[in-house]
Amino acid sequence: MPGRFISLEGGEGSGKSTQAHILAETLSLAGHDVVLTREPGGTAGAEAIRALLVSGAADRWSAWSEACLVNAARADHVDKVIRPALARGAWVVCDRFIDSTRAYQGAGKGLPDEALLALHAQVTGDLWPHITFVLTLDPGQGLARAETRARERERDHDRPAATETRFESHDAAFHARIAGFFTALPEAEPARCIAIDASGRINAVASRIHKALEARPWP
Amino acid sequence: MPGRFISLEGGEGSGKSTQAHILAETLSLAGHDVVLTREPGGTAGAEAIRALLVSGAADRWSAWSEACLVNAARADHVDKVIRPALARGAWVVCDRFIDSTRAYQGAGKGLPDEALLALHAQVTGDLWPHITFVLTLDPGQGLARAETRARERERDHDRPAATETRFESHDAAFHARIAGFFTALPEAEPARCIAIDASGRINAVASRIHKALEARPWP
Repeated sequence: MPGRFISLEGGEGSGKSTQAHILAETLSLAGHDVVLTREPGGTAGAEAIRALLVSGAADRWSAWSEACLVNAARADHVDKVIRPALARGAWVVCDRFIDSTRAYQGAGKGLPDEALLALHAQVTGDLWPHITFVLTLDPGQGLARAETRARERERDHDRPAATETRFESHDAAFHARIAGFFTALPEAEPARCIAIDASGRINAVASRIHKALEARPWP
Repeated sequence: MPGRFISLEGGEGSGKSTQAHILAETLSLAGHDVVLTREPGGTAGAEAIRALLVSGAADRWSAWSEACLVNAARADHVDKVIRPALARGAWVVCDRFIDSTRAYQGAGKGLPDEALLALHAQVTGDLWPHITFVLTLDPGQGLARAETRARERERDHDRPAATETRFESHDAAFHARIAGFFTALPEAEPARCIAIDASGRINAVASRIHKALEARPWP
């Protein structure tokens, strides 16, 4: 497919949504056909599934229920938005994709990575981003940012509702496991993943992403 | 686990829900602790997922979205209702289980049976019913029954809403593939599955199920 697929990944409060928004605007200003989207979500059906995932008590769903809900949403998103956009040559900028499933339901909740990869291969026809920016931040810093996120909501393209706090409400050990996964990911999968230091001001982080994108040859 | 797990399977209009209700009453009158439940559904979370599956246009979800939604619901149902009931020695009577996934998303929509079985093993810890009654009916007869089901709704334990018509609205070839799967299932898996002729009066079908249950030694 002629298009280009970029995902942004990271824990709570790492600034993914804001950075996805800025990256999409930058690419759009450069003249590209850009599709900015997010997971879970990105289609009417997937957003309905998202509503089940992100609200309610932390223990509302088991790890496998979560993984299946995320994959049901992803199948819809890939079929209806991502593959058609890539087929017409668009740049797709996606706020979270498969690595969030590996981080949250895998590292965070104990599901085996190989089982999640096998399900991903079935459900998406093994679709992977060309480039994944992994925003890394000390988990304490990330949660502190998430707590002040209310002030930043109007800047985010996804305007998360005040009720979308189910994952933030998980315990600190859970968030530490997620941070550990994201820290290790760029070293484990360097052909696809680029670590981005997510500390500091929004424009500084955006500049790091932009430079990394310019420096990286397309596969 | 000391309990006993019975599922009822069959296409649209085969009378599963009515027969599950009668079987649960019969077992309850015989002094057993009985849990009558259904899929997709059986818990608050799974019923919310069911609402996404059974309403809307026929093409609302792809095969894999459906399979993942059904498995998300099943994981919740197994964890919160079925395994606890079996652990305390109850008899669980379930209106649809894994075989409906194999029939609808497998035979009906083309997903490979082995992929569905692998996902089932992961999501449920490979939980299978001890006995599955497969209600078989000519698909034309079944759909004719489904059309007149409105008159029978008050008798069903699940009182399907008038909007729960998404699968009924699939084409005749889809229902024929489902009927084919259910017809072949008892011969393919005779240790677990028992074919029940679902034609004729409700009491006649209930009597066939009761006799088959009495005649079958427990594994």
